[in-house]
Amino acid sequence: MCSWKATSASPTPMARAIELARLGRGAVAPNPCVGAVLVDGDRIVAEGWHMRYGGLHAERECLVDARSKGVTPRGLTMFVTLEPCNHHGKTPPCTQALIEEGVARVVVGTRDPNPVAAGGIERLTAAGIEVEVGALESECRDLIADFLVWQNSHSTFNIIKMAATLDGKIASRLRRPEPVSCAESFARVHALRSRVDAIIVGGSTFRADDPSLTCRLTTLPDGFVQPYGVVITSRLPDDPARHVLTRTRPERTIFMTTDTSARSQEADRLREGGTSVWPLPGPPGGLNLSLGLERLRYDLGCHTTLCEGGGQLAMQFVGQGLGDEIVHFVAPRILGDEGAPSAYSGRQGVTMAQTLNYRIIDMHPSGSDIMLTLRPR
Amino acid sequence: MCSWKATSASPTPMARAIELARLGRGAVAPNPCVGAVLVDGDRIVAEGWHMRYGGLHAERECLVDARSKGVTPRGLTMFVTLEPCNHHGKTPPCTQALIEEGVARVVVGTRDPNPVAAGGIERLTAAGIEVEVGALESECRDLIADFLVWQNSHSTFNIIKMAATLDGKIASRLRRPEPVSCAESFARVHALRSRVDAIIVGGSTFRADDPSLTCRLTTLPDGFVQPYGVVITSRLPDDPARHVLTRTRPERTIFMTTDTSARSQEADRLREGGTSVWPLPGPPGGLNLSLGLERLRYDLGCHTTLCEGGGQLAMQFVGQGLGDEIVHFVAPRILGDEGAPSAYSGRQGVTMAQTLNYRIIDMHPSGSDIMLTLRPR
Repeated sequence: MCSWKATSASPTPMARAIELARLGRGAVAPNPCVGAVLVDGDRIVAEGWHMRYGGLHAERECLVDARSKGVTPRGLTMFVTLEPCNHHGKTPPCTQALIEEGVARVVVGTRDPNPVAAGGIERLTAAGIEVEVGALESECRDLIADFLVWQNSHSTFNIIKMAATLDGKIASRLRRPEPVSCAESFARVHALRSRVDAIIVGGSTFRADDPSLTCRLTTLPDGFVQPYGVVITSRLPDDPARHVLTRTRPERTIFMTTDTSARSQEADRLREGGTSVWPLPGPPGGLNLSLGLERLRYDLGCHTTLCEGGGQLAMQFVGQGLGDEIVHFVAPRILGDEGAPSAYSGRQGVTMAQTLNYRIIDMHPSGSDIMLTLRPR
Repeated sequence: MCSWKATSASPTPMARAIELARLGRGAVAPNPCVGAVLVDGDRIVAEGWHMRYGGLHAERECLVDARSKGVTPRGLTMFVTLEPCNHHGKTPPCTQALIEEGVARVVVGTRDPNPVAAGGIERLTAAGIEVEVGALESECRDLIADFLVWQNSHSTFNIIKMAATLDGKIASRLRRPEPVSCAESFARVHALRSRVDAIIVGGSTFRADDPSLTCRLTTLPDGFVQPYGVVITSRLPDDPARHVLTRTRPERTIFMTTDTSARSQEADRLREGGTSVWPLPGPPGGLNLSLGLERLRYDLGCHTTLCEGGGQLAMQFVGQGLGDEIVHFVAPRILGDEGAPSAYSGRQGVTMAQTLNYRIIDMHPSGSDIMLTLRPR
């Protein structure tokens, strides 16, 4: 048995609002995920979160929840992870609703980085509502890291998933498709797959594992569409019929490859079967990923991607500054073979002063493994 | 900022007894570490732990603490991590003290595996004390893992300390002595060094780092003796004066090496300087460690050792079933160079089905790193 620390029984209102916000991850893109709670004294009396793109904002969901419980918001305090919006977008401004309902005090996690939506704090203050900013601010900013990428770049938000042994190995030397992490971690990966728009692997993983790159949770939301399967490789497959991806869902499969390969007979055969082949600038093993990610976002509406390795591709994401989040499972086992592939590879002769540095924003037990969530430092 | 889970404010009595027991780790060897609390209703009114070998047992420390606070143990409940002893060893039996003081109920974490000391539960029950066994039993057994090794084998209890990147690297390809983990983890390693009797490294680490293998905490207990420095290598140094260990504390330094090397001129030079050279059976790179560890225990009184790598030696400990505990720091950084040394190395062509499997018994943030404690599965 593990002596994991018990989590505190009653989270603070803002911690609860953060938990709620996370429930919308994936479904709200390209909006930020937001959570809100209404508090009477030290008791949470209503909750809400932004559930899906185009749906009500968290503040309004919380007010709806209050109404359904017979709670009158007048004179109460709302905690919300992000500054309430002050503009007419898909929904009317949340500031208006808070003012109309007579909320007395609003505690905001972090300001809205989107200049169009910002100004909410000033509007609330002008209406006589007491506003505090900065409760669990860094956590509230971590919560909208994806939104910050969408606001500030043309890229998708990219999550790298890794499962490695204590010695950092992701497979044996023979690269047989053997699981590294436990069943619970496997389930967590599929939960992760359920909220991304594309799953990306490198050529070695494609050839060794012949993956389907689908989410295989037993219960999936209504109308769920499987993420795109993306393979980044300079070597296109000879025979599309021999691979699960190109055989079973060619129209949801994309190969990103060198200019030369994109003009080859193999590329033509893939395209004939309905598979997309996109050229990327750069040499084999060092393709410039930005252009491909931009195209995923603007041509196909992908907001979040999941890179599932191998080590060479993961290193390219990280090295090109495109590893926005890492979900790293540590399996408590030791392979001990330096010839087996590592979680990140492809650099040579670098020193410890040249590592790519992340910070751990969350850690959880996951069955017999632990799951770390990291963001660039 | 990290969203580490807050630890619960008031641990259960047995969880507190476990915390107390840990304070004695190292100092009580070869006794088990034990903690005890006296409880009145749901309030802890006295605490004690076995502090040093030859000192009072935890139960008696707890009774002394009660007396000093004016608490009468009569009718109260004692929680103790290990079955109270029932024999005259260095101290009279604890069962007797509990009976004399009129303790009404004793909650025991786990039974004493030592047949000489066992029988405490039966003695208490015969005296009319209510006894329960098995509160947090697996944690209480984990607590005395070292004692179980001392009871059941001739070996020392061996802790392997590793600090690795996300990709499992412990140094750059050039093996320069550069830190991998953060300052807080470094301090934790020195705290670990303060409670072991010998620090063991392999030849590559000896040659690359020229370590002193001392505990460099700013405050050390009175009469603290630095642990032995042990180097396991088939290649003895040519010139003892060129290495910190053999230059500054030769009489606390031991080389374990092949039979051939132990008869070499280099060995003679080391011995002339006061350094011990012990032959071990087995080929270079595959020395049988058991004999050396047994000699550390019975010739030098070492109970606990700390293996600080490199990866080859750590793998030998683990592979020979001698890695009793692993303290693994994960530094949230990526090197990305497969040619750099891994945390564990020396095996070849093994599959994932052949990993050495551990279980995580504790995880903690450690500055920007995380610290995992593992035991064999």
